[in-house]
Amino acid sequence: MTKEEALARVRDARVGRLATVRPDGTPHVIPVVFVLDEEEGVIRLYWAVDQKPKATTDIQRLRNIRANPAVEVVVDSNEEDWDGVWWVRLTGVARIIEDGSEREAALAMLARKYPQYAASPPEGAVVAIEVRRVSAWEAREGNPSETLRDS
Amino acid sequence: MTKEEALARVRDARVGRLATVRPDGTPHVIPVVFVLDEEEGVIRLYWAVDQKPKATTDIQRLRNIRANPAVEVVVDSNEEDWDGVWWVRLTGVARIIEDGSEREAALAMLARKYPQYAASPPEGAVVAIEVRRVSAWEAREGNPSETLRDS
Repeated sequence: MTKEEALARVRDARVGRLATVRPDGTPHVIPVVFVLDEEEGVIRLYWAVDQKPKATTDIQRLRNIRANPAVEVVVDSNEEDWDGVWWVRLTGVARIIEDGSEREAALAMLARKYPQYAASPPEGAVVAIEVRRVSAWEAREGNPSETLRDS
Repeated sequence: MTKEEALARVRDARVGRLATVRPDGTPHVIPVVFVLDEEEGVIRLYWAVDQKPKATTDIQRLRNIRANPAVEVVVDSNEEDWDGVWWVRLTGVARIIEDGSEREAALAMLARKYPQYAASPPEGAVVAIEVRRVSAWEAREGNPSETLRDS
């Protein structure tokens, strides 16, 4: 899988799973809906918090990111046919955006991907993940997972 | 969702996503196939490494577990209908089982759940996750995520 192919799969994925690290050093993982943003070689994911800002102080993944911004997201094939199984992992650094034009632009991208968000926009913070590494694995290639570079 | 309902969803799930923490303190997440084992109040997941033992020293998730056995697994609804969305998270401690009767018993359970494993058993270590906390969230219940207790 090339890096371009991996990013195309990420772009098309409807859900990813986001891992963060809690302040006590244990891992935390939940599903997230997200949008991939690429411009001039910068790879970025955006996802949003549905709840109102006042409630977000209680959201574990935001608490984790404030203490340790290192995150990882995996998207995968979710298939029963194991010969077709693959995953792509994005390793990066998260940044919480409480308001402003970048948040508005990210919400517009999310609404284009998810009609549910167009009908009912998220009320909380947006989180940007600046992707530092793209790794992937695919059963049919039979090789170990690898970090993908620009081809 | 009760704890019993949450565990039934975990039992039926075909894939989970496993988060571990790398020795450098960053998170790592990949899909895993697993089996749920419950006996006398003990909740345990087993998953297996396909590769031969000699190759497993290079597997990042095992390196992570050796340095920090704290893990988390999420299973979720993977649905486009957001009203039906849910997830269940299992927080626990992992233990690597290189050989012996517990490994054999876990492989037999995995083979009953996944025909692919019956045809071609995993050759590497089995990992047991002793589950310490079950948390869940469901869109239709409209409440924040919560730790589930025995009812």
